[in-house]
Amino acid sequence: MAHTKTVTRVSTQVGIVGAGPAGLLLAHLLHLRGIESVVLEARSRDYVENRLRAGVLEQGTADLLTATGLGERMRRQGLVHDGIFLRFAGRSHRIDFRELTGKAILVYGQHEVVRDLVAARLAYGGPLRFDVDGVRVEGLTSHRPTIRFRDASREEVELTCDFIAGCDGFHGVCRPSIPPSAIHFFEREFPFAWLGILAEAPPSSTELVYAHHERGFALLSMRSPTVSRLYLQCAPNEDLGDWSDDRIWSELRTRLATRDGFALKDGPILQRGITPMRGFVAEPMRFGRLFLAGDAAHIVPPTGAKGLNLAVADVQWLAEALGAFFRSGDETLLEQYSARCLQRVWKAERFSSWMTAMLHRVTGQSDYDYRVQLAELDYIASSKSAQATLAENYVGLPFS
Amino acid sequence: MAHTKTVTRVSTQVGIVGAGPAGLLLAHLLHLRGIESVVLEARSRDYVENRLRAGVLEQGTADLLTATGLGERMRRQGLVHDGIFLRFAGRSHRIDFRELTGKAILVYGQHEVVRDLVAARLAYGGPLRFDVDGVRVEGLTSHRPTIRFRDASREEVELTCDFIAGCDGFHGVCRPSIPPSAIHFFEREFPFAWLGILAEAPPSSTELVYAHHERGFALLSMRSPTVSRLYLQCAPNEDLGDWSDDRIWSELRTRLATRDGFALKDGPILQRGITPMRGFVAEPMRFGRLFLAGDAAHIVPPTGAKGLNLAVADVQWLAEALGAFFRSGDETLLEQYSARCLQRVWKAERFSSWMTAMLHRVTGQSDYDYRVQLAELDYIASSKSAQATLAENYVGLPFS
Repeated sequence: MAHTKTVTRVSTQVGIVGAGPAGLLLAHLLHLRGIESVVLEARSRDYVENRLRAGVLEQGTADLLTATGLGERMRRQGLVHDGIFLRFAGRSHRIDFRELTGKAILVYGQHEVVRDLVAARLAYGGPLRFDVDGVRVEGLTSHRPTIRFRDASREEVELTCDFIAGCDGFHGVCRPSIPPSAIHFFEREFPFAWLGILAEAPPSSTELVYAHHERGFALLSMRSPTVSRLYLQCAPNEDLGDWSDDRIWSELRTRLATRDGFALKDGPILQRGITPMRGFVAEPMRFGRLFLAGDAAHIVPPTGAKGLNLAVADVQWLAEALGAFFRSGDETLLEQYSARCLQRVWKAERFSSWMTAMLHRVTGQSDYDYRVQLAELDYIASSKSAQATLAENYVGLPFS
Repeated sequence: MAHTKTVTRVSTQVGIVGAGPAGLLLAHLLHLRGIESVVLEARSRDYVENRLRAGVLEQGTADLLTATGLGERMRRQGLVHDGIFLRFAGRSHRIDFRELTGKAILVYGQHEVVRDLVAARLAYGGPLRFDVDGVRVEGLTSHRPTIRFRDASREEVELTCDFIAGCDGFHGVCRPSIPPSAIHFFEREFPFAWLGILAEAPPSSTELVYAHHERGFALLSMRSPTVSRLYLQCAPNEDLGDWSDDRIWSELRTRLATRDGFALKDGPILQRGITPMRGFVAEPMRFGRLFLAGDAAHIVPPTGAKGLNLAVADVQWLAEALGAFFRSGDETLLEQYSARCLQRVWKAERFSSWMTAMLHRVTGQSDYDYRVQLAELDYIASSKSAQATLAENYVGLPFS
């Protein structure tokens, strides 16, 4: 008896793999330009809406979300911060973004952005499929590339597109679908990781605190007036089981301590995890009719808070380029997409590497190099120009 | 028959070992405060007056020389530069010191400064002994430390002092006279060196050109409107014999080339040599009544043009501290001397290491790290704040 396989055939203008902030925002920006898309996501809605990630929006990112109708809850719940604190040698030094650049940042969790994007997508009935399985992208150099997958009810679907956007993150399927000869990878592993916690504790500082301590880096951040997000530098192979709540709080208190008696407020730990530190860039960010965006194309170490913001910049340019194509058939911006993104990406890799090198303790570092590192912190604390370089990168370099 | 050894016993307030810019300027600054000193130098006057070294004076250094009566020839022959050029990817980018900091630099050879200092010393009859031999410093923790040496006529001399200033450079005898338990060394060897030439050729640029090229760093500098000073990054163990004049000029032309057709003027090579690249700091810069200053205490890689300027800062503070002591017996500034110098020294080590890392090619560097390096150059070319950090360090950080 012959086995009959049913395949549902559908088509769209842009097939988007991944419902993280990159994929969802791209779909939203395309919708505003009257371009159809289908968003496919391997995980469940509940998973992507609760996945804990970054929480710092550049002013340009927040402005874009507002301008495209996504800012209502963000403006109400997000926390505007006009600066950060650098803390070392027991002292705090404020970097005043507002004074140095005229701009600020908005503290608002990435999963909150995702929730807003999902809600917007569903409100206008845009195709958004969670829990899909076995995604494959094919015919990338043809004029009608295809995405094959099984939908939530295990039905085989063949989605024919004009373009595919690979927004499926570092571990996604899109980048590995590009032939090795057509793409080059740049990579750096850092010899440490972050142990991060989400705690039911009011933030102990009005603004983020980036602390260098001889025992390692620590970061005090927040999600709301009642929830703190804190990080500790740890070994890349650190075992979470070795870290009791007491040990975590004690280590945070030591590293964040100041001479003027800073007191860290603690509370129940709601979530905990280890974040690896990696720099990664794929070049180019395009193969035929497949365009990569966000983590699928590049990873920055988290110290510069750039990951989400780079993804937003990518899809903004991609939406603009696709808009020009569907309007007039002009491929100029599509041709420029990769180079345009990569210039910004490499500047963010530079900034994130610099922040990481300046703030972390490196095992096996020479005494000379350690003193140079301390001199860098000392220099930033004493120079408005140096503070301005940190500030202008942190709030987001101008789009060019 | 008993061997009779004649020892001449003399005394002074400050015994200064070394007649480089640090020792000679210290003697001059002490003289202006009415403090006696004796300067001892192992080399000949001819040697120190023709030893080719750095040639960039920070504005503060030039101002100090002028204020203390040493500026007459310098102001006539020195070249005021309001900026430098950074060159990479075939393009030049000007860093405008005047606009960014309100300050400039003065291009004037270190050996010219030495000539002016020797002339000034001799003019007022200050003790300055060249060609001394077998210098030893003793009794450093006593109240009357001693310098023993043989003078130019081979006579044994014992010079008793209130203080000794070790201004005898990296290879001098003063630093090694400090017990190892009382001093700590910080050191970094860079995996490359500079091949430098002095050429009878008009400078091909009005201002210094710092060039990054995939084949390595190159620096175009000048001594006068008819004499150029040029450098090429090379291996630390480079054999000068492998470098014909033709090869040197050809390599310089390649590395300094621009898209807009920069033409390098060549000419007879007057001098050539290999400069190692080293970072070195001794802490503290004092042991008992011995005070180290300049290269005896610290070495910077030459990329930041900081070596001479750090020596000037050291002796300025040392003269001030000795002045306070001889005026009132107050040792406060002498106690602060080392820490005060070292804060500036480490900032200069940081700046010089950063300039070096940004501009040189590193063998075995990963593709990722190379791209980050190029992004740093790209960032500086595009950011006024980043340019300002380079400029404020290059013209000299404020004294604090």
